[in-house]
Amino acid sequence: MLECISEHACFGGVQGFYRHASTEIGLPMRFAVYQPPQAKERKVPVLFFLAGLTCTEETFMIKSGAQRYAAHHGLMLVAPDTSPRDTGIPGEADSWDIGTGAGFYVDAMQSPWSAHFRMESYVVHELRALILQSFPARSDRLGIFGHSMGGHGALVLALRNPEIYASVSAFAPIASPVNCPWGQKAFSTYLGADEASWRQYDASELIKQSIIPYPQGILVDQGLSDKFLEEQLRPHDLESACQTAQQPLTLRRHAGYDHSYYFISTFMEDHIAFHHQNLNK
Amino acid sequence: MLECISEHACFGGVQGFYRHASTEIGLPMRFAVYQPPQAKERKVPVLFFLAGLTCTEETFMIKSGAQRYAAHHGLMLVAPDTSPRDTGIPGEADSWDIGTGAGFYVDAMQSPWSAHFRMESYVVHELRALILQSFPARSDRLGIFGHSMGGHGALVLALRNPEIYASVSAFAPIASPVNCPWGQKAFSTYLGADEASWRQYDASELIKQSIIPYPQGILVDQGLSDKFLEEQLRPHDLESACQTAQQPLTLRRHAGYDHSYYFISTFMEDHIAFHHQNLNK
Repeated sequence: MLECISEHACFGGVQGFYRHASTEIGLPMRFAVYQPPQAKERKVPVLFFLAGLTCTEETFMIKSGAQRYAAHHGLMLVAPDTSPRDTGIPGEADSWDIGTGAGFYVDAMQSPWSAHFRMESYVVHELRALILQSFPARSDRLGIFGHSMGGHGALVLALRNPEIYASVSAFAPIASPVNCPWGQKAFSTYLGADEASWRQYDASELIKQSIIPYPQGILVDQGLSDKFLEEQLRPHDLESACQTAQQPLTLRRHAGYDHSYYFISTFMEDHIAFHHQNLNK
Repeated sequence: MLECISEHACFGGVQGFYRHASTEIGLPMRFAVYQPPQAKERKVPVLFFLAGLTCTEETFMIKSGAQRYAAHHGLMLVAPDTSPRDTGIPGEADSWDIGTGAGFYVDAMQSPWSAHFRMESYVVHELRALILQSFPARSDRLGIFGHSMGGHGALVLALRNPEIYASVSAFAPIASPVNCPWGQKAFSTYLGADEASWRQYDASELIKQSIIPYPQGILVDQGLSDKFLEEQLRPHDLESACQTAQQPLTLRRHAGYDHSYYFISTFMEDHIAFHHQNLNK
């Protein structure tokens, strides 16, 4: 039921790529796992990374350089794909911001997407259970982070499930999808016209509805030369929501950095250390 | 004459991709440069990385994680493409181990390859001069390393030009191309039937012809689960040549590691530190 595509020794641990028949998605799904060297001896905390538009389960593992820090701290890394693929939905791969590579980590409610585009349930329930069952992972020490669309995903899945994820951070997240073109296009397509349902997948809205779900804080890094900053990402919306709700937030703005993995890799060490600290309290 | 394709802030420095009209190649060529933060203040040593079959100028910069260590030590990184592209030679991209992506860092002597496939002169002369002219690089502090076909390239270009390169290392190099299928195919295609010319591009042969060109040693890492190890890479040929010639060699064999960048990234820190030490003597 869990098929190994490839495994590679990496920083004393194992970088693996796997495929399984997903019941939530109704199709085969791929994901990547980095097991640190400590996982040979004992169960370790797990950090889920959700990638951005157009990415796959490989992107983070190839580009982020995270394995070095995960090996140092003894954290397992898990990266799912960013959407179902080959669903048969007409035009599913025609746009880079809808359909293939653009699942937005929601459970779609609109036909034809609702049959397969169930990325929230896939990540939060099915993939988590599969990881806990198949790898030496601690169920009580789970964190989540991500980039751009996946930064939105990490924040939203954490805020909707703080009892599952003990730690959350993001790189250049889509911080208020109800207020940006990417989010409005995705949510109207996947969720329909009722904007009340959109707000349940908007990090800045969810922060205001919560009672300090992450008292240890949320870490967000944002490059100031990111071409999506003002129109699509809107970190100030998250910042003001956190201020309103008294949710501690460390929002770091970095002059000169853009939206690429060259930005992500630069600050990866800090994020892994942040999660390590939160998951070992 | 030097066109910037893109630049990205990375670990306090600048990751750039560039294009220029190459006179040696007779076509446009692309290359990548990582400038560490120290390059804003002063000229820095330069480390050239030659990539393997099928790679481009992007591969090393995306996958190796080297920028972190280069930023720490203040080294500039330069990665050329692995061959000319779009030369118009019929079938140039039909094979993954000849033609496009497979320049083998030689100056071809056989038609039709000889018109464009001049990667040795390109890397050793034209690209070096261009880097020294266009970036804050120290001409007296140059090192070279590479992977697989590019490990062969690094060793051969260093051994043929020890007055240019003060430091050399390799990951899983093709250590004796005259004795392996990849090398025999490439050398017969690019150099012709005369095997005397092949030996001038074979690291293990060149070591035996030299008088300890690198007294400070050569560093080579090799994974023992590398599927190309015995047939194509032949590190034992390099090892015995170095023993014969009394050329110091640190050949590290790593159980479980394969031919991928997951292997390379694991030992990148050691290579950058090795070159830093050699280039700052």
